[in-house]
Amino acid sequence: MTDSPLTHFDSTGQAHMVDVGAKTETARIARAAGSIFMQPETLALIRAGSASKGDVLGIARIAAIQAAKRTGELIPLCHPIALTRVAAEFTIDEAATAVHCEVTAECFGRTGVEMEALTAASIGLLTIYDMCKAVDRGMRIDNLRLIEKKGGKSGHWQGN
Amino acid sequence: MTDSPLTHFDSTGQAHMVDVGAKTETARIARAAGSIFMQPETLALIRAGSASKGDVLGIARIAAIQAAKRTGELIPLCHPIALTRVAAEFTIDEAATAVHCEVTAECFGRTGVEMEALTAASIGLLTIYDMCKAVDRGMRIDNLRLIEKKGGKSGHWQGN
Amino acid sequence: MTDSPLTHFDSTGQAHMVDVGAKTETARIARAAGSIFMQPETLALIRAGSASKGDVLGIARIAAIQAAKRTGELIPLCHPIALTRVAAEFTIDEAATAVHCEVTAECFGRTGVEMEALTAASIGLLTIYDMCKAVDRGMRIDNLRLIEKKGGKSGHWQGN
Amino acid sequence: MTDSPLTHFDSTGQAHMVDVGAKTETARIARAAGSIFMQPETLALIRAGSASKGDVLGIARIAAIQAAKRTGELIPLCHPIALTRVAAEFTIDEAATAVHCEVTAECFGRTGVEMEALTAASIGLLTIYDMCKAVDRGMRIDNLRLIEKKGGKSGHWQGN
Amino acid sequence: MTDSPLTHFDSTGQAHMVDVGAKTETARIARAAGSIFMQPETLALIRAGSASKGDVLGIARIAAIQAAKRTGELIPLCHPIALTRVAAEFTIDEAATAVHCEVTAECFGRTGVEMEALTAASIGLLTIYDMCKAVDRGMRIDNLRLIEKKGGKSGHWQGN
Amino acid sequence: MTDSPLTHFDSTGQAHMVDVGAKTETARIARAAGSIFMQPETLALIRAGSASKGDVLGIARIAAIQAAKRTGELIPLCHPIALTRVAAEFTIDEAATAVHCEVTAECFGRTGVEMEALTAASIGLLTIYDMCKAVDRGMRIDNLRLIEKKGGKSGHWQGN
Repeated sequence: MTDSPLTHFDSTGQAHMVDVGAKTETARIARAAGSIFMQPETLALIRAGSASKGDVLGIARIAAIQAAKRTGELIPLCHPIALTRVAAEFTIDEAATAVHCEVTAECFGRTGVEMEALTAASIGLLTIYDMCKAVDRGMRIDNLRLIEKKGGKSGHWQGN
Repeated sequence: MTDSPLTHFDSTGQAHMVDVGAKTETARIARAAGSIFMQPETLALIRAGSASKGDVLGIARIAAIQAAKRTGELIPLCHPIALTRVAAEFTIDEAATAVHCEVTAECFGRTGVEMEALTAASIGLLTIYDMCKAVDRGMRIDNLRLIEKKGGKSGHWQGN
Repeated sequence: MTDSPLTHFDSTGQAHMVDVGAKTETARIARAAGSIFMQPETLALIRAGSASKGDVLGIARIAAIQAAKRTGELIPLCHPIALTRVAAEFTIDEAATAVHCEVTAECFGRTGVEMEALTAASIGLLTIYDMCKAVDRGMRIDNLRLIEKKGGKSGHWQGN
Repeated sequence: MTDSPLTHFDSTGQAHMVDVGAKTETARIARAAGSIFMQPETLALIRAGSASKGDVLGIARIAAIQAAKRTGELIPLCHPIALTRVAAEFTIDEAATAVHCEVTAECFGRTGVEMEALTAASIGLLTIYDMCKAVDRGMRIDNLRLIEKKGGKSGHWQGN
Repeated sequence: MTDSPLTHFDSTGQAHMVDVGAKTETARIARAAGSIFMQPETLALIRAGSASKGDVLGIARIAAIQAAKRTGELIPLCHPIALTRVAAEFTIDEAATAVHCEVTAECFGRTGVEMEALTAASIGLLTIYDMCKAVDRGMRIDNLRLIEKKGGKSGHWQGN
Repeated sequence: MTDSPLTHFDSTGQAHMVDVGAKTETARIARAAGSIFMQPETLALIRAGSASKGDVLGIARIAAIQAAKRTGELIPLCHPIALTRVAAEFTIDEAATAVHCEVTAECFGRTGVEMEALTAASIGLLTIYDMCKAVDRGMRIDNLRLIEKKGGKSGHWQGN
């Protein structure tokens, strides 16, 4: 029987947390991004809060960073990872009436941190949804994706 | 000073977990949905696994259900909620080369379960990403949104 | 298609957290028990510690109680439950060179607390293993089982 | 043998999570407070950040609220509690070169929320320590205490 | 005063998380096993589900892997460990009307992973109990034990 | 724009988990301490329990050790850390009618363990509060502080 190209399954199709013990420790970076689209009035409230009070994006940033640390608990086959850096950046896009989020995660370890960056971006955007849902239930999270990955055997990868 | 329409902030702009103690307990339902888009070859691997071995969608379903229970830990201002039901359905869409996910969450309580449904869908889709990323790093999660909400003072709401 | 007698699956075989929203809240009790068997010398160390210093059983008791509260995170399809009481009792059995553990869990709610009692007993016994493994790696946990259950539609059940 | 006045122990001295199943559900409120003392220069940095950027107190507030929800995991014999409200207020005290924190926690349930308020205040103050420790390792947390408690059999209690 | 042979206690009998800072990092493996015994009809339902729908063992496998990652939270004096591999195998035993579980855990670190393997096996078996308890409350978990350990100062150990 | 001396903020004032990837791994130790003050009668109950039954301090010690392991989840910008040792010592002070707590935390890593020691001491003292609050609601936690720190670029630091 040939192995599945899906490495989280062994040759009999059973899921496992794959063996990374033989991999060398290298510096690893992943960047992920996503967006939340909303009504112009909602975006105006977020912008107003960021400047003075009711800081939606400041709270979303903390939620994103904390979620990165819990990725191994949330994604069943992820390895626990000792992150060395997490940063989350939110940008208000008036034209698109959206907030864009970009998260960078880093570690020095045996496996990549793509899931940490993606999970952080996802929870950051959901936190914006939570805080604004009383005024805009129809917000939509879109285009959550990996945009860059460095380190490890597979080297440098860039999306868009 | 007038209150912010963003109820998670008090009149001075400080974040709080809003008081729901005076709300009546009612049956509450929320449905959320989202999609992950991928290469046709990746979708073929998922379909093959679901039928026989390497069950990506079965594992994503468990991750979604477990994430619903942890929502209060992930989203800073969410209340802890005693969920009475969570179900997650995944549909393979050949035409769009995507997997669609729909989650229903229910409770009998003082506040809604929208965030539980959205968080579950998000983590379910990220679990698919995790299991297929070795063959397709460019997958994209899109259109994560609330599609229905019942119960509580605000009544019935439907998106699309 | 007929439904599975395994209620955690819907009629198409998909796992879900079953709907308990329509159940009435009743007082519920579950008792679970299990044992760990060991060398007589190991049991003597545990007995000595309980009397004066190095209180293995006191620490196992706390681990059991704390694990009961985390059951919903550990067992994928368990509901989150607001436990109203947990007690864990350990008994030294010289004849069998074993420690027996019995846990009682209670709640006032819509679903039973069997898994909470069983998980607590299991983690309590594993904590004994952890603390004594430096002197006795061959310890064995046996006979972990539900011994009683009250409340809810299914009424009173007793095992042995 | 007479029972210990410490209710977390049974008559043989074994710890347990005490039975609250027979208590009636009432509205319960607890307020706790504490302070962190520091160098005037450190306080000036916190004040500057609160006004414009580097919002130490905004992050401490989120940490406090999230900690309140995890109290049952941290304090071994605490019951899990469905909090209905948490608010954390920080006050800058120039004269004392300190930040004071006051947390209010509420639930509608069978047991009090003192530990939730105290744990939240404690983690909020520790978060201030964490964010300022690079410039002031000698900060000191003082006077962490319960200041008010309402609801339940013991009625209204006020400290100072 | 002589030290206790129970290394989790200091010379005065106080529990601590023992110092492993001076140990060298080596590859470490632990294998643990256990069984759950049940009615023949229950085993038939599990077997049927594994082949087509209602995959009890697939869900138990995920629960086991996730529990391995939480061991440090559950067992009070365990060190947090960066696992590099976890695999859980379930075998249906018609003659014994039982399901056997074997878990392998690995890390590259300063302390062993016995507790991770044992905790994973335990939670995997409890998940089977949870999913089948509606049809068979009398199931029994037996013979949970360490079967092999490699790495570290104590070298290779095998049980049976 | 000059950087803030508060390193948890970047030059635009956004919070992040600071990059420690380039730091060398060294042995790190932190010691923290704090006290809880109470009525003489309460202290007498704690002393009685420590000697025979109702071991408040034994339970507080376990709570402290477990909290040290969860620090990264509680303090938003803390790095996850693989602790190699945690010890918590409680001293009864008759003259001050107080219990003093001192925690030592150690790791071999890229960042310090001050927050782990402080969080452990804080939760240990709160656990004493929890177990004695039925007899003494006015207990007060005071003087929680770092007392020593070794390892890393900043070298040896001692408080008092």
